[in-house]
Amino acid sequence: MTRTSPGPTVGVVGGGQLGRMLGEAAAPLGVELVVADPTPDCPAAPVVRDQLVGGFEDESTVRELAARADLLTFEIELADPDVLERVTEETDTPVHPAPETLRIIQDKLVQKRRLADAGVPVPEFRGVDTADELREACEELGYPAMLKARTGGYDGRGNVPVAGPEDVEAAMADIAGPAMVEEMVDFERELAVMGCLGDGERDTFPVTETIHREEILRESVAPARAKESVRERAREVARDVLDVMEGRGVFGIELFQTGEPRSGSERSSGQRPPEGEILLNEIAPRPHNSGHWTIEGCHTSQFEQHVRAVLGEPLGTTEIRDPTVSANVLGDIKKRQDAVLSGEETVLSTERAHLHWYGKREVYPLRKMGHVTMTGDDREQLLADVRGLRDELTFRA
Amino acid sequence: MTRTSPGPTVGVVGGGQLGRMLGEAAAPLGVELVVADPTPDCPAAPVVRDQLVGGFEDESTVRELAARADLLTFEIELADPDVLERVTEETDTPVHPAPETLRIIQDKLVQKRRLADAGVPVPEFRGVDTADELREACEELGYPAMLKARTGGYDGRGNVPVAGPEDVEAAMADIAGPAMVEEMVDFERELAVMGCLGDGERDTFPVTETIHREEILRESVAPARAKESVRERAREVARDVLDVMEGRGVFGIELFQTGEPRSGSERSSGQRPPEGEILLNEIAPRPHNSGHWTIEGCHTSQFEQHVRAVLGEPLGTTEIRDPTVSANVLGDIKKRQDAVLSGEETVLSTERAHLHWYGKREVYPLRKMGHVTMTGDDREQLLADVRGLRDELTFRA
Repeated sequence: MTRTSPGPTVGVVGGGQLGRMLGEAAAPLGVELVVADPTPDCPAAPVVRDQLVGGFEDESTVRELAARADLLTFEIELADPDVLERVTEETDTPVHPAPETLRIIQDKLVQKRRLADAGVPVPEFRGVDTADELREACEELGYPAMLKARTGGYDGRGNVPVAGPEDVEAAMADIAGPAMVEEMVDFERELAVMGCLGDGERDTFPVTETIHREEILRESVAPARAKESVRERAREVARDVLDVMEGRGVFGIELFQTGEPRSGSERSSGQRPPEGEILLNEIAPRPHNSGHWTIEGCHTSQFEQHVRAVLGEPLGTTEIRDPTVSANVLGDIKKRQDAVLSGEETVLSTERAHLHWYGKREVYPLRKMGHVTMTGDDREQLLADVRGLRDELTFRA
Repeated sequence: MTRTSPGPTVGVVGGGQLGRMLGEAAAPLGVELVVADPTPDCPAAPVVRDQLVGGFEDESTVRELAARADLLTFEIELADPDVLERVTEETDTPVHPAPETLRIIQDKLVQKRRLADAGVPVPEFRGVDTADELREACEELGYPAMLKARTGGYDGRGNVPVAGPEDVEAAMADIAGPAMVEEMVDFERELAVMGCLGDGERDTFPVTETIHREEILRESVAPARAKESVRERAREVARDVLDVMEGRGVFGIELFQTGEPRSGSERSSGQRPPEGEILLNEIAPRPHNSGHWTIEGCHTSQFEQHVRAVLGEPLGTTEIRDPTVSANVLGDIKKRQDAVLSGEETVLSTERAHLHWYGKREVYPLRKMGHVTMTGDDREQLLADVRGLRDELTFRA
């Protein structure tokens, strides 16, 4: 693209915090964003050219977005691949990543099958539609297992652990739809790699260590505190994942680093992967929470990289500048209320600490409201410091 | 300020590239910007909450801005201190820096007198209203001298060198208004310090070396390639300058590092400052072109610092991350035309190079259209590399 004014315009389906941070990254490059989001005054609105208020799956909204943009992308998996495909064909506005990639990723069973077929190491899994099928699958995979809704889950929603045969009926009823079940991986740690596909280019950011609680990401540590060989293997697996993806953009690739098998495992089939192996957990076809640290930690952030990638401009370097740790600021309250944060003075007065506030009007329990990043040298210290700062930030009156 | 949504809102008089970069810096902090600028779709418009289209000095526009904002600031000296003073009194909306500081800085003679009175080292100067006064002053200061319009000059406009007595009449006619004349400083290099005044805090960024051609800034090198003692003295002078300023914000403080006196100088009064001294050149009561390198080069950019400062939030660290060099991308064409830049592929594909495009619709000769920044280790190499990249960027068809 050539820089003109107004500059190249990217139409983004979704205007949450990822859309907001895409906007922050696009501006210096002279790239404009228009976002489509059903929430009036969505988080991205104050930092982008314009927001269209409309549903992620609403074809007329997406068509209007295409009319305003040189190119379409999405920052949420609730985008509709059929709508995107029709609009791109009708209007000749490219969309990246490819709708087909979104379609594959939206269905966790299809995603896993496609990746397994391509030789990407994944946990053992089975598609299950009934309690009987789930029971049968668990007998092969061993208890405990993880039952997952095939579509629509995020931040742990749609995932139900199955501890033993007595849980099977309730778990299946809980999902209430097409599902898949996976062996419960005995992981040593969770990792993530932001992968990027440009115009004939493929690259990966340094490996992030991700720390979850209640299946929600709490902290990200980069580079991951894993052996160099493990990190190299993680980037290798990420590159293999990228080869399955179509179109351009940044992909959040979540991985398990396996640990020692649980003692007393009831698994029957017995071929657990050895310690220190990498298994793919899930993919997001967009920048991802586990890559927020790249804003301060890398020369090119995952958001700038996504903008460059979808436009077909050269990818930036994925080199890290300094060890970096981020922590999510989540709703620490019991019920939905107006968002009024306190404690940010402490963050703002801490050297090398960076506050990121997403501008959401309402907070509810565990909602992602912002994040805090620190750069430095010693990852243990950074993690302790960032947790301390995060704990100062509260929505409680 | 407490983070709520919508967040704290800063009303900015002016929406050029400085307003745009303020917007880029404000967004992660959860701070919103509304800008007032007479040019529809000004550079800041696509990255801020809203633009009010109106003149910098237009009282009703500034009053509307105050109604939209928790606090006012300005990114251009053409803001009117009387208007700002009236609006802040009427509406109880604070304005930073203080209008009185803007008033002092707008008149170069008043500025120099105030600083000299406070003990800040400045070149020798005289106020001159007629050709006779100019001739008399030059006889004291020595030829060549620099005649400056007291108000309204920037990027060298309003400055006329006076080589000898034969130039006096023409120079005075050229300025056509109240003026001041200064000794021509034999500088070794030009320096700049971004100073910041917070709520009870005062700090300075590392010293920038500024390289001008045709009195327009071309490149900035940080830290300046001067002896440590010279850099320390520059920050000391900058701190003294800050003590004269009222209100909060970032100030661009331009300095001369004196060199050997010119041979054959005709100066009569003879007390030229010794080599390696620091003399104040000019002050801008806002973020400044010579601080753009802080976006990538420091943990806190001058723009983030200005936002923190005017809001009365804690200042960020001014620590440098890596040696950094920036170069301005100026209009390299003969006459005004639509802005279509080419050559950015080279910048985007160079590691650790960062493109900043201001989104101006028209380019004219020497207009500031963007800048390129590189971080690294070796400042000589960075300067050569950045100049090479800058030279690739052209508006010529």
